[in-house]
Amino acid sequence: MDNRKEAPIGVFDSGVGGLTVVKEIMYQIPNEKVIYFGDTARVPYGNKTKETVTKYALQIVRFLKTQNVKAIVVACNTASAYALEEIEQEIDVPVIGVVKPGAKMAVESTKNGKIGVIGTRGTIGSETYTTYIRQLNPNVEVIGKECPLFVHLVEEGLWEDPVTEEIAKRYLMDLIDVGIDTLILGCTHYPMIRKTVQRIMGDGVRLVNPAYETARELKELLKGHDILNEQTPGLGTNMHRFFVSDAAERFQIFANSILKYGILSAKVIHVEEY
Amino acid sequence: MDNRKEAPIGVFDSGVGGLTVVKEIMYQIPNEKVIYFGDTARVPYGNKTKETVTKYALQIVRFLKTQNVKAIVVACNTASAYALEEIEQEIDVPVIGVVKPGAKMAVESTKNGKIGVIGTRGTIGSETYTTYIRQLNPNVEVIGKECPLFVHLVEEGLWEDPVTEEIAKRYLMDLIDVGIDTLILGCTHYPMIRKTVQRIMGDGVRLVNPAYETARELKELLKGHDILNEQTPGLGTNMHRFFVSDAAERFQIFANSILKYGILSAKVIHVEEY
Repeated sequence: MDNRKEAPIGVFDSGVGGLTVVKEIMYQIPNEKVIYFGDTARVPYGNKTKETVTKYALQIVRFLKTQNVKAIVVACNTASAYALEEIEQEIDVPVIGVVKPGAKMAVESTKNGKIGVIGTRGTIGSETYTTYIRQLNPNVEVIGKECPLFVHLVEEGLWEDPVTEEIAKRYLMDLIDVGIDTLILGCTHYPMIRKTVQRIMGDGVRLVNPAYETARELKELLKGHDILNEQTPGLGTNMHRFFVSDAAERFQIFANSILKYGILSAKVIHVEEY
Repeated sequence: MDNRKEAPIGVFDSGVGGLTVVKEIMYQIPNEKVIYFGDTARVPYGNKTKETVTKYALQIVRFLKTQNVKAIVVACNTASAYALEEIEQEIDVPVIGVVKPGAKMAVESTKNGKIGVIGTRGTIGSETYTTYIRQLNPNVEVIGKECPLFVHLVEEGLWEDPVTEEIAKRYLMDLIDVGIDTLILGCTHYPMIRKTVQRIMGDGVRLVNPAYETARELKELLKGHDILNEQTPGLGTNMHRFFVSDAAERFQIFANSILKYGILSAKVIHVEEY
């Protein structure tokens, strides 16, 4: 009967960004096995429509179903913003996105009631962060700013670079003017450039990384459903598995720059067939 | 029997970049009808593998088949570099890519025998330009340089911008050092930033835009097969049709910034079903 407890957690993202969430899961609930899927063939999701992102997310969830996952983490802000309900209808296991935990943490953090959100065109345009934040506290002002180039600058490795600094200044200017005291990093790629963002926003602004809070809430969710894995995995057992829709080699290189321990391999699957 | 002459030409690209080729077709063979497909759901192709790009290209070609096209222009350097042969096997009409015409023009242009090529990771990694150029003249030296950020800078509208200038300087440095006298703009997005590239390379370097040469060769190809349309279309007849796999509205805005006359509408189709 304890079978469910030892089942893996399915985590997916449009590409490599969701690995920042995997990293937090590894820290906070190290007994859990992760099955990760990165949709590297169809990345990025940020500029696609709700219809397309939802279709892609449901294909991935159907693949994760075949892996017998006990819970699903939508480690992509755009997919969380657009498709969470549809995913919950598709599969009969607990589902958690990154938007709600991020919104909650920001509401707890703000003192002056002004929260900024940066993300892709899809995430910001959907106003999902705003909706969740207002549900928690209708008096909070939410200022969203789409930052479409950030994801590419991160993927090209320009984490500390004058070009990223310049682009960040342009994107963040409006948020500085408004005087926010809390800023949600509303895309899983952004923690990689958090130093640049912090420098531009100044020490008075707290950066919220939804990945951290998502792993924390995931733990509570697993406990609540009595499916938290209490077994420490044996040394040398292959705990985590990584799947992508294309370019496994590039994925591995990037993954190994984010995660503390090396990924041995990532397997390509044809996700559009699910 | 003249039916074939009045059939449309199928043109496709991973997204909007191929419109620079459409623009040249409109100038050089204005009687021709174009059916354009932009794979906006799965853009960009530049970082994807040969296998995935080929699969996507064949789906698009099967869609264009249903539109009864008389010829196909692969207006995407990455797809031309990876999938031209497979496309020729898939459909029984003349097929032309942008790589071969671009290579030919560069060989005719160079005086010092040093040609540079800039493009996506896929285009440069495939070395297809190098192969074609060497077939034409084995003594020419070809220096390829992948410029993955250019496509995103163009799509975000930073055509004349200090950031684009800075990134371009980094990418082009090696090509300047080698002393090339001819540079192929090996991605259909690049003509939009040709001024920046020309400024950095200096007046001594000739920029080759394969879009121009492709339209010229297309005309010869149509003549050779006796399918050039000699009928001037009636005023007000809807000559060109545009299809995309996602986000038709954004596509229209971009298209109208490239093409001289306005696109009335673009239709979304589910290309993965072909």
